[in-house]
Amino acid sequence: MKSFRKELWFNTEKRYQFVHITDDVKQALQESGVREGFCLVNAMHITASVFINDNESGLHQDYLEWLEKLAPYSRKGYHHNVGEDNGDAHLKRQVMGREVVVAITDGKLDLGPWEEIFYGEFDGRRRKRVLIKIIGE
Amino acid sequence: MKSFRKELWFNTEKRYQFVHITDDVKQALQESGVREGFCLVNAMHITASVFINDNESGLHQDYLEWLEKLAPYSRKGYHHNVGEDNGDAHLKRQVMGREVVVAITDGKLDLGPWEEIFYGEFDGRRRKRVLIKIIGE
Amino acid sequence: MKSFRKELWFNTEKRYQFVHITDDVKQALQESGVREGFCLVNAMHITASVFINDNESGLHQDYLEWLEKLAPYSRKGYHHNVGEDNGDAHLKRQVMGREVVVAITDGKLDLGPWEEIFYGEFDGRRRKRVLIKIIGE
Repeated sequence: MKSFRKELWFNTEKRYQFVHITDDVKQALQESGVREGFCLVNAMHITASVFINDNESGLHQDYLEWLEKLAPYSRKGYHHNVGEDNGDAHLKRQVMGREVVVAITDGKLDLGPWEEIFYGEFDGRRRKRVLIKIIGE
Repeated sequence: MKSFRKELWFNTEKRYQFVHITDDVKQALQESGVREGFCLVNAMHITASVFINDNESGLHQDYLEWLEKLAPYSRKGYHHNVGEDNGDAHLKRQVMGREVVVAITDGKLDLGPWEEIFYGEFDGRRRKRVLIKIIGE
Repeated sequence: MKSFRKELWFNTEKRYQFVHITDDVKQALQESGVREGFCLVNAMHITASVFINDNESGLHQDYLEWLEKLAPYSRKGYHHNVGEDNGDAHLKRQVMGREVVVAITDGKLDLGPWEEIFYGEFDGRRRKRVLIKIIGE
């Protein structure tokens, strides 16, 4: 069994931002040499997500507005916000998810026609990272 | 390490519909010959889910009504709905999830007593598919 | 390829409760002897979650209050509640997730600086369990 590990680092301009990382994951897979297996991609921080959906800016705007309704930013409205103000980010990340597992078939990410991988940042403007871990043969 | 891949295809009658697929996944596992490992089951489309919960019709009705409250259908209410009307489906799928990973132990899906696997369709009446990928020994 | 399986059992005092299980998962990893691979941790019951977030009591209180807003307890408000009253628990679990997959690198859980693993109980005061399944080398 082969295994491969790589980190991706981010420092987003905005507090809330989605970053398209499919090409970075494809690059990691190529470096791994794995032909059949699983690829785990997960946020290493608890106020960020990795998710798969459409690479369409209107949809991303919908996600941000919807998450703001479900779990609004509030400096004083969360028990967690003692000395910080990112309580909403922990909730938003739960809706969008921590991780995705993608099948690897014949040396490629086995994605459907519109599946693209994104990093979802909900408390940005600081250095944070994603883990790519690949196992297989 | 063995690996096995299979697609399940769907064309639901209704726009929103849950399809019980535990038996299909068990069948795939049997075909794979894997005794110990992991089984990934994921929607290959971004307006559908794979999730694990109870096979109980009242609960499924609850899910549909609840998702409609959290992310209501709206032809004009989403930025994504330019030329289409499935903005809500992308949101609903995020709540229910893209994928499940199920342990394989002694040649069987290692599920709890009430765990059943479902395909969750939020923009149906068209051909869509699920990927089953199994790795192990 | 090595594989390892272990169950964790719970019987929470409260109906809704989070239990910190990172040390239990580390212990299982040590028992497995796996140095490189994947560790799946999943609830085996459909009214409970396994999730990764911060080990901070204020945040946990925020999660419980937020989930109660998104999917309130109601004895009569759910189709599922015929003979039981845990309809809300099935919904809350969907938001928090069934499972996490954690990378194993150099014999350790490859977690970010604040990532901690929790069992999320939404219908407790009864015996329920979590599955840890590890594959790798």
